[in-house]
Amino acid sequence: MRELDEFFELLRFPSVSADPAHAGDVRACAAWLSEWLGAAGMEVRLAECGGPPVVTGSAGLRPGVPRLLVYGHYDVQPAAAEPAWLSPPFEPEVRDGLVHARGATDNKGQMFSLLLGIRSLLRAGVPPAGLLVVLEGEEETGSPHFASFLDRHRAELGCEAVLICDTSMVAPGWPALTNGLRGIACFEVAVHGPRTDLHSGIFGGAVRNPAMVLSRILARLEDVGGGVGIPGFADGVIEPSAEERRGWAELPWDADWFRAATGVEASGGERSLPVLERVWARPTAEINGIFSGHTGAGSKTVIPSVARAKLSFRLAPGQDPGSVAGMVADWFNGQFAFEGVRGEVVFDHGGEPFHVPPGDPMLGRAAAALEEVFGRRPTLTREGLSIPAASMLGRALGVPVLLAGLGLPDCRAHGPDESFPVAHLDLGARLLRALAGRMG
Amino acid sequence: MRELDEFFELLRFPSVSADPAHAGDVRACAAWLSEWLGAAGMEVRLAECGGPPVVTGSAGLRPGVPRLLVYGHYDVQPAAAEPAWLSPPFEPEVRDGLVHARGATDNKGQMFSLLLGIRSLLRAGVPPAGLLVVLEGEEETGSPHFASFLDRHRAELGCEAVLICDTSMVAPGWPALTNGLRGIACFEVAVHGPRTDLHSGIFGGAVRNPAMVLSRILARLEDVGGGVGIPGFADGVIEPSAEERRGWAELPWDADWFRAATGVEASGGERSLPVLERVWARPTAEINGIFSGHTGAGSKTVIPSVARAKLSFRLAPGQDPGSVAGMVADWFNGQFAFEGVRGEVVFDHGGEPFHVPPGDPMLGRAAAALEEVFGRRPTLTREGLSIPAASMLGRALGVPVLLAGLGLPDCRAHGPDESFPVAHLDLGARLLRALAGRMG
Repeated sequence: MRELDEFFELLRFPSVSADPAHAGDVRACAAWLSEWLGAAGMEVRLAECGGPPVVTGSAGLRPGVPRLLVYGHYDVQPAAAEPAWLSPPFEPEVRDGLVHARGATDNKGQMFSLLLGIRSLLRAGVPPAGLLVVLEGEEETGSPHFASFLDRHRAELGCEAVLICDTSMVAPGWPALTNGLRGIACFEVAVHGPRTDLHSGIFGGAVRNPAMVLSRILARLEDVGGGVGIPGFADGVIEPSAEERRGWAELPWDADWFRAATGVEASGGERSLPVLERVWARPTAEINGIFSGHTGAGSKTVIPSVARAKLSFRLAPGQDPGSVAGMVADWFNGQFAFEGVRGEVVFDHGGEPFHVPPGDPMLGRAAAALEEVFGRRPTLTREGLSIPAASMLGRALGVPVLLAGLGLPDCRAHGPDESFPVAHLDLGARLLRALAGRMG
Repeated sequence: MRELDEFFELLRFPSVSADPAHAGDVRACAAWLSEWLGAAGMEVRLAECGGPPVVTGSAGLRPGVPRLLVYGHYDVQPAAAEPAWLSPPFEPEVRDGLVHARGATDNKGQMFSLLLGIRSLLRAGVPPAGLLVVLEGEEETGSPHFASFLDRHRAELGCEAVLICDTSMVAPGWPALTNGLRGIACFEVAVHGPRTDLHSGIFGGAVRNPAMVLSRILARLEDVGGGVGIPGFADGVIEPSAEERRGWAELPWDADWFRAATGVEASGGERSLPVLERVWARPTAEINGIFSGHTGAGSKTVIPSVARAKLSFRLAPGQDPGSVAGMVADWFNGQFAFEGVRGEVVFDHGGEPFHVPPGDPMLGRAAAALEEVFGRRPTLTREGLSIPAASMLGRALGVPVLLAGLGLPDCRAHGPDESFPVAHLDLGARLLRALAGRMG
């Protein structure tokens, strides 16, 4: 199968954006895609914006005809530190109908299936919609240059919808449309006490312990119901619609699945809400790291000079990282009022939540396209994490972003033996054609 | 001056017990002391108990005559990591009446001054009291073999009092008798959550965060008044006497001193009590270290799998590390009742508090001896830290241990340019003679 051979060529590039040693491989992968798209009939450019090039392509653009933009990323997660691979991560191998390789599902497989759809449309003649592609090379490192790419190239990217295949289906044969993602706001908090670590025998009882102060403040970050303890934090969060809640209730992600995935019960957060609503549609405050004083072996009886925590707040649709940054900083600055310490809160970075209202007409078209391909109506799902490019594209272009994942829940993105079903290459191609046909 | 030459010889041994590379120097120092004590007229033995030898000496022992045991330690803190020395730490030098060398005050100078007193008593004839010396070589590493030494040799060490010069005077010319030290109980606490660190986007909101649980529990370790939050923790603490409180109120250790020493105000602990009572006579709970999740640069949005804290409780006279160990473990085990986590509390080690009641007759004799030497009545002081050997000696021998320090507050024990006043060699010798004369 020619498509599979081409897919293997694409997978063989160790396009690990996080590792400078692979910078050449990342660029080589971009060049391969550029050539492939050109051969498929697209007009191709490599946009340089400080990182690996963004590969852009266009075809069939003409006045009065709606345009569909396909976003994908050709960089992949590192694999060198994962000994559990059954076959080498950059030597793709098919086993039981699955292609195993780093990037198989995230995102080369899902991306390439859509590109195959574009090629088949262009071969068949003039496509029913104008087609644009934007392939990024540093999604796995947080898309640091993508906003500046969009700033410079927005005018050329005008379209009616963006299609991204970088999320998960519910199960084989059960499609999902992901209409919401959480945003994020990250902070570092420090409580400074005595000039240096002090002997707790000599000074203990008179010096305020910064680690104790930090613990006392962090304890207040969780309210009695398990929600974020900052008053008013969740104000403005858009409630899931009745349709979304109904769909979520039918999903096969139950207590057993949660226990198997985490090793614990789903006992955190706002216990009065269903688990999926908590992880998909509610804000959280997490301690990602905390450190102070002696952290080595044995005991060292010091009063630490400083205690630090790294925090991230997940934001639900309706929240804004900028406002949250101010609210969190104000709250902490109000908590630091302990004599004998000095507190400090620093906003590190943020990302906007993402949301397409369930009634959006373009979402309806994507649902119809998925139903045509899979013979089953997709469930509206969300994800609890951010896909920065999705939020950036929606904001920059002012159009709905359609997240129609073709990966399976057990495709092991970011893990060893990552896989993608061979059959999904064709499903993606059909999805692209079905959606392009409905753009009018 | 012959005594100063001898003192310099003693100081030149780099008898750093913490550094295996100096094990030979530690033994050489023991041999030098053994020879010196023999020449002074004592019967000397080297007791091997697993660490450096304990040098023991005796003289003038006879039935019906009370005995005074002098304890000291000939090992010293490391100095290699201290670039701030004005002269090399093991090449003693006198500047402005102070001998500068590692161990000058802690404990070679204070110890040697008492040994000079013993030599002068033995030269003058039969001493007024039986004299015993016990010189340890691993006090700076926590006296790990001293209990076993005492177990084996208790019978030979029978006496009426132990004299230790290893604490601080109030100021030049202002002697102190230290009649109390705090004990200690150290723990490690862990809160275990999910099997591995989890992606806080995918699972945040449904998985209980172990670092948050730990923070919430630790926050309860401090009560509203700044004391230990474990109910009944301070029950049984022996209140300082009126005489002690009066003496402490007159000491020149004020807010300015505290700020200069620590960089902060004395705003920790039980704010209703004077600072010296808080650090000398009250129990505390300190977080010595805390660590969980991502502690490196930047942000990593994980829910940590585990959160750990290292804790030490200082114990006041009247408390017992064994009972405290049980009480603390019970309290933590009662706090771990959060669904989705598993808590663990491990007792690491403990040390008993030390206390000689202010009315003890032997303490009165020591006070009189100090007054004879200094022309000023000593103030009863305490220290907030432990001197394990003092507690062990008191318990093993069942006699009062007299802590009559000859160091000055600015002698910089454990620091660069450690010093001891030349004149204090003679003061120590006179103190030993004065106390021996009062033993009857």
